[in-house]
Amino acid sequence: MTSNQPTVVDELDPPSLQARFHRLRSNKAFELFVIGIIVFSALVIGAKTYDIPPLISKIIVFADWFITLFFLVEITIRFIGEPRKRDFFRSAWNIFDTLIVVVSLVPIEDSEMALVGRLIRVFRVLRMVSIIPELRVLISSLIKAMPQLGYVALLMFIIFYIYGAIGSFFFASVNEVLWGDIAISMLTLFRVMTFEDWTDVMYETMEHYPLSWLFYVSFIFLTAFAFLNMIIGIVVNVIESENRARQIEEQGEQPARSDLEAQLKQLQESVNQLLERQR
Amino acid sequence: MTSNQPTVVDELDPPSLQARFHRLRSNKAFELFVIGIIVFSALVIGAKTYDIPPLISKIIVFADWFITLFFLVEITIRFIGEPRKRDFFRSAWNIFDTLIVVVSLVPIEDSEMALVGRLIRVFRVLRMVSIIPELRVLISSLIKAMPQLGYVALLMFIIFYIYGAIGSFFFASVNEVLWGDIAISMLTLFRVMTFEDWTDVMYETMEHYPLSWLFYVSFIFLTAFAFLNMIIGIVVNVIESENRARQIEEQGEQPARSDLEAQLKQLQESVNQLLERQR
Amino acid sequence: MTSNQPTVVDELDPPSLQARFHRLRSNKAFELFVIGIIVFSALVIGAKTYDIPPLISKIIVFADWFITLFFLVEITIRFIGEPRKRDFFRSAWNIFDTLIVVVSLVPIEDSEMALVGRLIRVFRVLRMVSIIPELRVLISSLIKAMPQLGYVALLMFIIFYIYGAIGSFFFASVNEVLWGDIAISMLTLFRVMTFEDWTDVMYETMEHYPLSWLFYVSFIFLTAFAFLNMIIGIVVNVIESENRARQIEEQGEQPARSDLEAQLKQLQESVNQLLERQR
Amino acid sequence: MTSNQPTVVDELDPPSLQARFHRLRSNKAFELFVIGIIVFSALVIGAKTYDIPPLISKIIVFADWFITLFFLVEITIRFIGEPRKRDFFRSAWNIFDTLIVVVSLVPIEDSEMALVGRLIRVFRVLRMVSIIPELRVLISSLIKAMPQLGYVALLMFIIFYIYGAIGSFFFASVNEVLWGDIAISMLTLFRVMTFEDWTDVMYETMEHYPLSWLFYVSFIFLTAFAFLNMIIGIVVNVIESENRARQIEEQGEQPARSDLEAQLKQLQESVNQLLERQR
Repeated sequence: MTSNQPTVVDELDPPSLQARFHRLRSNKAFELFVIGIIVFSALVIGAKTYDIPPLISKIIVFADWFITLFFLVEITIRFIGEPRKRDFFRSAWNIFDTLIVVVSLVPIEDSEMALVGRLIRVFRVLRMVSIIPELRVLISSLIKAMPQLGYVALLMFIIFYIYGAIGSFFFASVNEVLWGDIAISMLTLFRVMTFEDWTDVMYETMEHYPLSWLFYVSFIFLTAFAFLNMIIGIVVNVIESENRARQIEEQGEQPARSDLEAQLKQLQESVNQLLERQR
Repeated sequence: MTSNQPTVVDELDPPSLQARFHRLRSNKAFELFVIGIIVFSALVIGAKTYDIPPLISKIIVFADWFITLFFLVEITIRFIGEPRKRDFFRSAWNIFDTLIVVVSLVPIEDSEMALVGRLIRVFRVLRMVSIIPELRVLISSLIKAMPQLGYVALLMFIIFYIYGAIGSFFFASVNEVLWGDIAISMLTLFRVMTFEDWTDVMYETMEHYPLSWLFYVSFIFLTAFAFLNMIIGIVVNVIESENRARQIEEQGEQPARSDLEAQLKQLQESVNQLLERQR
Repeated sequence: MTSNQPTVVDELDPPSLQARFHRLRSNKAFELFVIGIIVFSALVIGAKTYDIPPLISKIIVFADWFITLFFLVEITIRFIGEPRKRDFFRSAWNIFDTLIVVVSLVPIEDSEMALVGRLIRVFRVLRMVSIIPELRVLISSLIKAMPQLGYVALLMFIIFYIYGAIGSFFFASVNEVLWGDIAISMLTLFRVMTFEDWTDVMYETMEHYPLSWLFYVSFIFLTAFAFLNMIIGIVVNVIESENRARQIEEQGEQPARSDLEAQLKQLQESVNQLLERQR
Repeated sequence: MTSNQPTVVDELDPPSLQARFHRLRSNKAFELFVIGIIVFSALVIGAKTYDIPPLISKIIVFADWFITLFFLVEITIRFIGEPRKRDFFRSAWNIFDTLIVVVSLVPIEDSEMALVGRLIRVFRVLRMVSIIPELRVLISSLIKAMPQLGYVALLMFIIFYIYGAIGSFFFASVNEVLWGDIAISMLTLFRVMTFEDWTDVMYETMEHYPLSWLFYVSFIFLTAFAFLNMIIGIVVNVIESENRARQIEEQGEQPARSDLEAQLKQLQESVNQLLERQR
């Protein structure tokens, strides 16, 4: 609540560890160095997907531990550098970063779990998003756009569910793999929506139900329409907020017209006084 | 016609059945409960598409009858709660709901008709749209956009018909399945429009008519163009109505400039009077 | 040049043949009847694509001749009804209609030419566009948009030509059917642009030139970019013309602000006169 | 720095070679002739992709050398015609043109290098872009739009990289050709993004990992979303710059409202003087 108060004491004292770390983490060069390490960790992950000689493999294991350690140090610096510890975990990005680092520290030797361990290391690349402000803005604007799309997504889901149920009832006997149950039917419908070999699916069912092309064509039209609706909705929103921003700007820079009216009225009254006196 | 009159008598009397049902159906908790039942009915429909043990199958039959009964009660409450019975059937959504419920009541034991019975139960999921106001708005805005698209749709149909006829005349001998008659040709053209393996269709006819690529490429360009035209038409409409709405707003909040002119004219006249008197 | 002069004489005289035909062709019922005949001709064309018993086949031949004759009569009425004969052939739609009718009159008995005869009859359906004003507006707006797209289309063609030449030089030895010469290469590239089995094409050439994926991916990016550029260009044009239209409207309904200034100046002068006299 | 100074001396002297060439290269007819030669060079390139009799092949070799020579002469004229030689190489287009011409001059007899020689001749067609101003504007607007898209492209790349790594870890054992290493995995993901037979890829991995459809569907949603975000970003930019341009225009043509206020204030003061004198 009082986190907006200036931390005056820290500033005046000889630089404490917290203040020094605060300065370090705001340092541009330090940030670039962290980005460099993230890129390096991405390259290490990429290298692992190739067949590599044992020597390089060992170097990669070493690099892996170095990166994990570096990230641990970096997050510690960021945490200590934070003037108010409570604020640190208010940022979803900080929580995400800490989680990635902590999970990386868990030693996984088991061959079963090795894949999971690899997976976690892959998510380190996502730290790129948390460290570059422009990407963070992009992601948060994507997340902000979500609720707007909520009802269109719900409508889409209802369309998928109904068509999935109908498809499963009628076509399960035709092709068990594509229409076996409602879940697999919905996946098949997603495929139809992306136009991926949808005619193969259609021709197969048309052999048993000659009118089943109606099912596919109506589904394509409905989803295309809902999709179009969504895009137009977003564009309208964007234009509206644009217009509103401009309107506010215009009103700010120009005196209200009613001011002119008031001035004119007062002037008229003054002249009227003159006229009365002359009588 | 007089449905706008307040139903004063009902309000003053000790709450009648109608008034109590009216309050019930406007109740938020009741609405959420109905939505819950609809979701449950959707799950029951989904469950039917899986192989299920006989016990669960029996539970589902029971659930099915419970849902049907519940919807019957709910629609009855909504009908009795309506102050003017005539208005109830003016809403397309009420008619739709009633139809779904009434048809569900018809007992279908016949194995032939069982599929139809299942189909009707699927449409219960659409009640989700009729009960959530936001979805109702979405659907009605979709329906409102239809006539705007009418002429573009007609143009599209003419393009499809002409290309379908030409395709059928020339290519029926090449591939009876794809170009047998004008109806199947138009379905094949719809496939070409979605780019679904359209080159397979083209390469086949190019063996007999080497220039037939002109047929496909020109068709793709024409439909893409008409489609683009449609989207731009919608965007323009949206921007136009946006602008109109803003203009009306602007005119409302600011006094007309001609008012200022009139005020100035009157002031000039007063000053002129002064000048004349001084002579 | 003088076609705007009212044809007063015609109006006063007892209705001449020209005036009567002029009135007839502007008649709403007559127009609907013509649309009906066009729809009928479309149905006849569609019917021909099905296997039909000889009796119906004979009826269709008869219907065909009736339609041809009707269109001949209709175009004659329209021509005679035209106050200034010269104007008749100024409209591209009239020329189009006349051509369709005249070519339909040429008797084609030859089995070779029968297909061409059928083709011409198909184009009668296009008369739908020439007779419904809304469709005519749509088409002419499509044609008007063409030159705007001209330079983007030229850029697209240059991209296609360069990639076509490169593709033909390198991949002709891999697959003669797809990359044989520059024309067939450009058709293959059009296929790649529509994403139609483009990976099959790519995997084939990647066996000989492992880096050829660069060719495809760069081509897809370039064309997608040019296409995006085109769409945005159109949208900007639309918004610009919208804004211009609104600006003109706004300026029309409001007196110029400089008028207010002039009025104020004059008022100041009058008051100054008053002040001087009082001295 | 001083390149904006008029080159007065050149203009007054009897036309020097430089001035004459300057006039020549600005000549419309000369420009059209150059465009003609470029089109001719494009046709020669296209002709080479066909099987041609030896005689025509010889003519083409001759035409090739003529075009190379002509372009050399043309670029020399343009260079000599430039008033300030330094400015010539400031234009990226001039550098591009010079490079194309210089590289064409290198004689390539080697059969290995013949393909490279052909490739360079293909790029001559790009000179079309450098000589037609409208195309130059299109290209430079495309390049200007690039940095705007930079961060979305980076985000896309991160998504591709992460999914590529995951895909390679899990699916390399399923299909070495599609998921062998991270590079080939990203190419496969690009294929999935274009919806090209993506279900074939999915069904294959679903046999081993039944939940792998989540991988594909989430990837398609993420990329579609990022793509949508990009398009909307561009449209908003376009609308914003449109609005800004209009605002500046509006402010220019109308006197500031504060001017009216000042005039009114002065008027009021004059009237006040009148009132005081009358007392």
